[in-house]
Amino acid sequence: MSSSKRTTKLEVESPVPADIDIANSVEPFHISEIAKDLNLSPNHYDLYGKYKAKVLLSVLDELEQSDDGYYVVIGGITPTPLGEGKSTTTVGLCQALGAYLDKMVITCLRQPSQGPTFGIKGGAAGGGYSQVIPMDEFNLHLTGDIHAITAANNLLAAAIDTRIFHESTQSDKALFNRLCPPNKQGKRKFSDIMFRRLKKLGITKTQPEDLTPEEAAKFARLDIDPNSITWRRVMDVNDRFLRKITVGQGPEEKGMARETGFDISVASEIMAVLALTTSLADMRERLGKMVIGNSKAGDPITADDLGVGGALTVLMKDAINPTLMQTLEGTPVLVHAGPFANIAHGNSSIVADKIALKLVGPQGFVVTEAGFGADIGTEKFMNIKCRYSGLRPHCAVIVATIRALKMHGGGPEVVAGKPLDPAYLSENIPLVEAGCVNLARHIVNTKAYGVNVVVAVNKFSTDTEAEMNAVIHASMAAGAFDAVICTHHAHGGKGAVELGVAVQKACASVNQPLNFLYHLDISIKEKIEAIARSYGASGVEYSEQAEKQIEMYTKQGFSGLPICMAKTQYSFSHNAAQKGAPSGFILPIRDVRASIGAGFIYPLVGTMSTMPGLPTRPCFYEIDLDTTTGKVIGLS
Amino acid sequence: MSSSKRTTKLEVESPVPADIDIANSVEPFHISEIAKDLNLSPNHYDLYGKYKAKVLLSVLDELEQSDDGYYVVIGGITPTPLGEGKSTTTVGLCQALGAYLDKMVITCLRQPSQGPTFGIKGGAAGGGYSQVIPMDEFNLHLTGDIHAITAANNLLAAAIDTRIFHESTQSDKALFNRLCPPNKQGKRKFSDIMFRRLKKLGITKTQPEDLTPEEAAKFARLDIDPNSITWRRVMDVNDRFLRKITVGQGPEEKGMARETGFDISVASEIMAVLALTTSLADMRERLGKMVIGNSKAGDPITADDLGVGGALTVLMKDAINPTLMQTLEGTPVLVHAGPFANIAHGNSSIVADKIALKLVGPQGFVVTEAGFGADIGTEKFMNIKCRYSGLRPHCAVIVATIRALKMHGGGPEVVAGKPLDPAYLSENIPLVEAGCVNLARHIVNTKAYGVNVVVAVNKFSTDTEAEMNAVIHASMAAGAFDAVICTHHAHGGKGAVELGVAVQKACASVNQPLNFLYHLDISIKEKIEAIARSYGASGVEYSEQAEKQIEMYTKQGFSGLPICMAKTQYSFSHNAAQKGAPSGFILPIRDVRASIGAGFIYPLVGTMSTMPGLPTRPCFYEIDLDTTTGKVIGLS
Repeated sequence: MSSSKRTTKLEVESPVPADIDIANSVEPFHISEIAKDLNLSPNHYDLYGKYKAKVLLSVLDELEQSDDGYYVVIGGITPTPLGEGKSTTTVGLCQALGAYLDKMVITCLRQPSQGPTFGIKGGAAGGGYSQVIPMDEFNLHLTGDIHAITAANNLLAAAIDTRIFHESTQSDKALFNRLCPPNKQGKRKFSDIMFRRLKKLGITKTQPEDLTPEEAAKFARLDIDPNSITWRRVMDVNDRFLRKITVGQGPEEKGMARETGFDISVASEIMAVLALTTSLADMRERLGKMVIGNSKAGDPITADDLGVGGALTVLMKDAINPTLMQTLEGTPVLVHAGPFANIAHGNSSIVADKIALKLVGPQGFVVTEAGFGADIGTEKFMNIKCRYSGLRPHCAVIVATIRALKMHGGGPEVVAGKPLDPAYLSENIPLVEAGCVNLARHIVNTKAYGVNVVVAVNKFSTDTEAEMNAVIHASMAAGAFDAVICTHHAHGGKGAVELGVAVQKACASVNQPLNFLYHLDISIKEKIEAIARSYGASGVEYSEQAEKQIEMYTKQGFSGLPICMAKTQYSFSHNAAQKGAPSGFILPIRDVRASIGAGFIYPLVGTMSTMPGLPTRPCFYEIDLDTTTGKVIGLS
Repeated sequence: MSSSKRTTKLEVESPVPADIDIANSVEPFHISEIAKDLNLSPNHYDLYGKYKAKVLLSVLDELEQSDDGYYVVIGGITPTPLGEGKSTTTVGLCQALGAYLDKMVITCLRQPSQGPTFGIKGGAAGGGYSQVIPMDEFNLHLTGDIHAITAANNLLAAAIDTRIFHESTQSDKALFNRLCPPNKQGKRKFSDIMFRRLKKLGITKTQPEDLTPEEAAKFARLDIDPNSITWRRVMDVNDRFLRKITVGQGPEEKGMARETGFDISVASEIMAVLALTTSLADMRERLGKMVIGNSKAGDPITADDLGVGGALTVLMKDAINPTLMQTLEGTPVLVHAGPFANIAHGNSSIVADKIALKLVGPQGFVVTEAGFGADIGTEKFMNIKCRYSGLRPHCAVIVATIRALKMHGGGPEVVAGKPLDPAYLSENIPLVEAGCVNLARHIVNTKAYGVNVVVAVNKFSTDTEAEMNAVIHASMAAGAFDAVICTHHAHGGKGAVELGVAVQKACASVNQPLNFLYHLDISIKEKIEAIARSYGASGVEYSEQAEKQIEMYTKQGFSGLPICMAKTQYSFSHNAAQKGAPSGFILPIRDVRASIGAGFIYPLVGTMSTMPGLPTRPCFYEIDLDTTTGKVIGLS
């Protein structure tokens, strides 16, 4: 079935109106109509209001025998702080494929954090005539997945501090007796989750009474080293005052105060788990094996050691189902997971992509976005996400703008909130040409995975034909399969038809297997160095702390995990000011951390903020509800 | 239309199985079937999965001309720490009215906090054969209302600290200029919300340029006194280590650390606003006028002063719609709001009750529960909730148990988690009779509002006929309209048929107007004293702090608000150990606080915990997901 019957005829205006005005000008289809076009039967989805539905994982069982569609990943060149329109291009390309090229298509997007919506950045539903609607529902609450992550993350945090507290006031025996209290018949028993810890400790006995006092103590006393705790609390609000806090200062907590902090919810490891999991059973295991810190003896302590892995899974059971929405032109969108792109892998979920590939079927297209520039987003898409999913992309798109290329060519600094320098508003071909070194390296790196690369030049009204031709020329010279100009911001899907055709051709002609950048069985350092080389680095320098952590994770048996670099998106290097395609630098690794449940080691290149702040005049000053119509106003 | 066609035939077992096993043994109806029985058209509700729907406020406009049904409030005697089955009786009564007495009926319940579900208490969906299903959906996430409250509460908290921070580093002029930045045309303008603050300051100018430097400073600098801030952050998790914390310890916060703490989300004033609001427009106003503290000059600072009242409303726009669920016997339930019963008024929402009264229509019944004993729950139902709603109840039920009456008669202490003393398990009529003083005072107090009082004795298997007869006799002697024995826990609606008949008669025969306990125009102290007298107190003693606060609120113009006493539920007095019907005591008022947006002043009688903790072995040890069936296990 073609999806074109759902097409909304967009009547575009020029100049392009505000995003919210465009979003409000289109009446969305009831989401059951969108589901019907995908041949989704009502027993495979749950409605959440009129314009959102959760697609249930059960659909994967039913479509197990069906063939997948083409799989397209959208990356970008190294961006300016203004962003180069990667989400907008993702949506625009899908509107073109679905509404103009008569293809089955699904857009897979990340769910944005609610924090920035009220802070500086505003929403993340695309822009202009390439958007996901309803925009307010996309940006706020959605179907509650991030709220579920917040709840689960913080239940685990509460379990940690409370456990340390109770262990500090009880003997081994009292602790064991409270953990295994007698039932009404006076008999003690282990709850199911306790067998996970018993197994880890090598205890095969099944009756509490049979444990020796030493075994009982080993079982009951986790002996968490408070200084080793890496698990922080989270909240989906830009609250800078929670970055560093002291908890436990109440008199009832008996002086057990501890320094810690909050991250924004999307930085939770549980978000990364959601994005990388492949089934309910897999999610249960990943949540249970998340490591929150070490015992004083240096053993990793997990959520299951704390008895809470099952409860976390219960809190996340609905969140595992992706949310179906629609674009301005009525093509289907799956919104699911939104992990950080530095301390996590910055890609939407595996389950959404898998469901989408089955639903579009052969000859259909699934377009998924990878966060940040291709050095980070596409690299992690390939080496982490595809490694866990077993999926392989047929085509990688790299989004470029004349603005960003000029910056890489030596143009003046681009600062959010300040007027653009005139260099960016009038023709300057040498600046563009010089900047194409950045694009070229992204093309070469991406092509090395064995996929065809299509460059999408996201055209702004001030860009000239000659500037754009320079980019196309440079793209082809660097090995791109194709390079095209897009005007989807101004024209919707119609403005990305050429891109859609190029992507189709690229998908149809791919014939190599996926080449990972590194194998999992080499050492942590060798993996870090392979990625560093792709950045142009000539070497890697490890801090003492990083060395210590690498040694610890290796000893703990975690060295076989893939690597998730936490690096600035504003340069190939660690230095955001180094534009273009720097090389010969030494990449410094400040620290190394791990998300064991999600399944990656993340080296920190520099300092990453995991909790944004609010400016003096946040976006929320404009946001209100029209209480007569019930419509949201002022959302950007 | 009768609701009886939705009846599920319950096959009861004896002894009564575990709540979760009963809940899982009944296949719920699709919620659209329940909606259909209520004559709710699909455009008046949004589905949230198969078993939950949000009923939209728009239905009130459509049914504006319809007559209301009977309105029944369920209170209780002063409880033991084990609870006396008020929720279970509420559900059981409705199952009787709907499934056995062929009446249109809706149960209005509070949404429980998720925290205790994983802590000690377990869920709150009723019990035995009188429950709301699906039990896991009722207890976890529901339709996201509490998550929305958490998000809104914490956005306001972030706005407070950030504003203080930015004010500390900027001149009046810089601050004003950042709050009203020039647009692309170089023109400054006020955003809509700013006119609220301008109006409060008595500034009628509409252009930023026209303000004098003094006016601009007054407008831009809120000058919040950090020591006066009463707004705390919230989280729906039992996390005792957040009770008292220090925030702002990061280097970027430049030494602006501040002591504060987290409450559990349901303790947020926003929860109380949700419960007391009557429309979107009313909610917008209440959220905007919530007071977070004072300026250094002593003026109250509101959410609208911070520019965030509109954004809070946007976050709460879906939460204002009650959630439709069902009982084990297929009768409809509206779940909505769950404010604390001490620092707030402990009643479910006005909008749910209003919608329900229209939907059941004349001769139909709406049964709503008031938290804690009748001294607290029913009192606040009458003097706060009915005052704001304009609704009046036709009948008040008081739930009593032999167990609690024995305790009031002088029986040994009842402690949660410890075996009951034999006094509670064998017949002891004198103990029961002595305890009826507690019940009698609740009857007299409740009757004084001008409603008929029906006593429901929630029968346990160990209660004897003679004991129950003693209660019935004492009830009638104290002025009850009727008093009946119920066995809905063991038998479902069938066990509450007699109660249903008594409630019907009580509703049909009421003929007085609602008498409030106090008028709003008397002083704060006079109101406190009127309530104290209803407890049996001979006087009230105010701490210095309480005197100061009363003076401040009076000066600020808030003395016309109703009073919400924050008192223990375990005694009529402030001392939980004083059982029965104490009198002649002096009620101590430790402090007085206010929820200006919600609309009440709350005096603190003793210390109230607003953040529960987790025990050594929390409920979560038993909770897991069967990843094959997707079913939750171990929830209690």
